[in-house]
Formats: sequence, structure tokens, C-alpha cells
Amino acid sequence: MAARFDRVTLIGVGLLGASLGLALKQRGLARIIRGVGHRKETLEKARVRGAIDEAFTPVTDAVPGSDLIVICTPAATVPTYLDAVRPLCGKHAVVTDVASTKHDICTHAKTNWSKPYRFVGSHPMAGSEKFGPEHSTADLFEGSVCFVEAMNNHAPDAHAAVAELWKAVGSKVVPVDPALHDVMVARTSHVPHVVAAALARLTAREGDALRPFTGGGFRDTTRIADGRPEIWRDICLTNTDAILAVLREIQADLSGVERALSTKDGAALEEYFTKARDARRRVIDL
Amino acid sequence: MAARFDRVTLIGVGLLGASLGLALKQRGLARIIRGVGHRKETLEKARVRGAIDEAFTPVTDAVPGSDLIVICTPAATVPTYLDAVRPLCGKHAVVTDVASTKHDICTHAKTNWSKPYRFVGSHPMAGSEKFGPEHSTADLFEGSVCFVEAMNNHAPDAHAAVAELWKAVGSKVVPVDPALHDVMVARTSHVPHVVAAALARLTAREGDALRPFTGGGFRDTTRIADGRPEIWRDICLTNTDAILAVLREIQADLSGVERALSTKDGAALEEYFTKARDARRRVIDL
Repeated sequence: MAARFDRVTLIGVGLLGASLGLALKQRGLARIIRGVGHRKETLEKARVRGAIDEAFTPVTDAVPGSDLIVICTPAATVPTYLDAVRPLCGKHAVVTDVASTKHDICTHAKTNWSKPYRFVGSHPMAGSEKFGPEHSTADLFEGSVCFVEAMNNHAPDAHAAVAELWKAVGSKVVPVDPALHDVMVARTSHVPHVVAAALARLTAREGDALRPFTGGGFRDTTRIADGRPEIWRDICLTNTDAILAVLREIQADLSGVERALSTKDGAALEEYFTKARDARRRVIDL
Repeated sequence: MAARFDRVTLIGVGLLGASLGLALKQRGLARIIRGVGHRKETLEKARVRGAIDEAFTPVTDAVPGSDLIVICTPAATVPTYLDAVRPLCGKHAVVTDVASTKHDICTHAKTNWSKPYRFVGSHPMAGSEKFGPEHSTADLFEGSVCFVEAMNNHAPDAHAAVAELWKAVGSKVVPVDPALHDVMVARTSHVPHVVAAALARLTAREGDALRPFTGGGFRDTTRIADGRPEIWRDICLTNTDAILAVLREIQADLSGVERALSTKDGAALEEYFTKARDARRRVIDL
């Protein structure tokens, strides 16, 4: 049976926070949802949409008495919110987050909180280049994967509550070691974002003159470059080593293409594209 | 009024060739369509689908008596077909192609044919990672851009016929200098393909272990890496200099990201993603 929460506090009511609020509400999984944010306008949008019941600005007012606190802010700010939330939590409160990087955040929590841990890191693989509560939907998490920090000196009830939370809103929960998580998503998400942005930047100089030359390939390849710059800055700053390693790998691969081009090595080029196609087919369900 | 052709020969009956055959047939723009190909099975698929009326293997049998010949083979083979077709063409025959690179092909034609030229290069920006006559559709070109070699010592009637051909099947015709065309598509299509393939190749080693980590971003960013390796090999071999120049540009840009990551320069990273988003919004109709 899905967990039912009496009072949930969502810190950050953007696309993910507000969608989680809507999903919990729609399924009757939370009695009261509190939203915390800096901007009154954003909080009001989330409230009008039905994602939160009450709006707060300081976390000190919102967190006490909550049995679930979900930090839905950009990755780099999560440790600060963890520090702010910790002294305000009741004994039975459970804390999680939704950031796309996990190692820094989970390490920070483990360093500052005492065992058994009641913070369990999460990364729902949902969302898109859209942002803000105005794009939130109750089914955002439906059918998506949600990574949950693997059991590691956590309070069993807190760990179970976080896993049940994501299952209840439709996600497939995949437990994962935070460091391994970051290495894997550097490869499948963070570096693709950096590279999609580099492709989009290739059009900066010519601008309008390139319009007739951009087809569906360009559109799809660069779609995620329309994401929020500050979110991606934070992801880069909190998963630096893994992203750097994969960037070096892709640079070396592209240098190989340059060599093949310079020597007009058709066989090497064909092999390059063949291996790409085959690798993609293995990791994606066609 | 749209041109009407008595006898059209399509050399190559893959996705583009067969779709052109279907589009011409459906609009009553050709009395007889001849298809030329190496593989009997592919020709038969195209015939059964209604894309061609007659199937041929040697061009020597198909071309004589045709008033329009469209070479729909991979870029690197087009010059060879141009040489094969030239002595077989009647005085009023018009020849075009559909390859994604234009400079080598148009230069080859101009070097070997005499003025006024009756070969006019084309590049319909249609198609996808799918291939073969089994995916052909009569509306493939509908709403897409088709680049047509700009008037340059061409026979006016031949040039007009090629432009009208593409307009008749639903394309927006954009006249372009072949060398400029290749420089532009290197940026918006060829390098995005090479880079999408590099992203897909990043998953080759881990394979299955990466499956849960691949979301919509990875899927879209690498979609075009599912294209035919031999097509992309040929594009690389026939637009080498422009692709090399743009690859060097993107490598330099990625090196900039590496520096910003190494120094944890958040402002530089945010600016990087902001410029990407803004550049993309300028060239794509959102």
C-alpha cells in the first residue's frame, strides 16, 4: 500500500516540485502540502494550480510538523537547504530531494546528519526543457525511472517511505549508489546536455541565415539545449569530475573522426557510425 | 502550373527515391516511372508499393527516352552515375539528384557536361533515420525545404523543371550556391550527426547497465545516430573540409567547458548554456 503523508513540505515549486504536489494531491497521498519559495508569484501559481495548499517563504515556518520534506531546488543549493532543514525536522520526518546529481548531496547529508539517516537522496528522471509550476502535471512521473540512494545506514522506515513515495506517483524505483549514479548520468544525460548546447552554439554567428538549413535532426539533437542555464550550471558544478572524464572521452572520439576525415578513410568512418548505431540500439528500447 | 513528366527514371529506390515516385504518381505528374537499382528485392518492394512502374538494373536500359532522371543514391556514388547517365540522355532530358552534399557533385557535373547545363543539383531536406522503399510515403517532401543549385550557366528550362518538380511534391524551394550549401549543412546537419554518433558511442562499453539511465534527452539527442552508416560515411567523404572546420570549432568550445569545469567557473558555465539556448531559439521556430 502506498504511504500516506499528513503534512508534506516541498522546498521549491518549479516543474518537479509542483508536479509532485499535484501527483500527491490527485492520489490522495497527502493531507496538506506546503510550498516554500523565494518568489511570491511562483508560489501563487503553484497554489492556484492545486499543487500546494499553503505558501511559505522561510523554511523555518514550513518544515516543523512536516512528516515529508522534499527539496526540489537546483543541485548546488540542496546542501544549504539540508543544513537549514535538519534542525527543524521532527524525529519521524523523512527528507529527500530531486536533484540530478547525487554524490555531493548524499555525502553532505551523511557528513552532517547522524545515523540512522532520515535523508534519502532521489533523482526522478522526469521533466523536460520546460520549467515552472505552470507546466506541472500530476502524471509527470508516470512511467519514468526514479533513482533512490541505495540503503546505506538509513533508517529503514525513512528509506521505505521515499521508495514508496516515488512508486505511488508512478515511477519505477531503481536503487543506486550515489557515486555510480553520477558517473552513469554524466554519460547519458549531463554530457549529452553539454554537447547539445555546443551544437546549438554553432549557429550563434550565422543566426537567421541558417534557418532554412535546420531540419528535424538539428531540432531533436539540440532540444535539451533549451533547458534552464542555471540548472545545468549547477549540475556541472556538482558532477564536475565525471563530466570532465566523459568530455575528454568524446573529444578523443571526435579527434578520431577528424583523422579519418583528413585521410579520407571511408572504412573507419563507416565503422564509426555503425558502432554508434549498434550501441544506441542496445541501450534504448526501440 | 506544375511540370508534367512523361517518363521519369529514378536511380535508387530507397526512402527518398521511392517517396518521390509515390509523390509524382499520386499527383499525376508522371506517366511512367522507371526505377533503377542493384537489388531485385528492393526494386520489387518499390514496384509493389506503387512508387515505380518498371524495374531496371543497368542504367543503360532505363535512361534513354526519359525526360527526367533523378539520382537518388548516396552522395559518393552520384558522380559515377552522372558519368553513366550523361551519354544516355536525350537533348531535352533534365537530370537532378537528392544527395545531402552539393559542391563535389555540382562541380563534377560542370566539369564534365557542356553548357548550358541540364544537370541541376538538389537536396531535399526530408527523410529520417529510416530507410528503404518500405518506409516511403507520398507526402515525405510536403512542407520541407528543398535546396536547388542556384542558376549558373544552366539551361533555363532544365532549371525551372527541377524547381517545379520539388514545388509540385510540396517542398519550399531555396536556391543556393553549392559550396555555401555544404558549409551551412556541415553546421546544422553533418556535424550534429557526427556528434550524435559520438554520444551514442559513449554507451558502447557499459551497454545494458546504462539502460535505466537513458531518458528522453539521450533518446532525442542521439536519434539521428540510428541512420545508415554508409550514407553518413559518404556525406563525410564528400563534405570533408567543411565538416572538419566545424568539428574543430566544437572541440574548441568543449575545451572551454572543460576549463570552466576545472576552475568551477559557474558564471562561465551559465553563460555557455544561456548562449546555446538563445542561439537555438533564433534559428528554430518554436
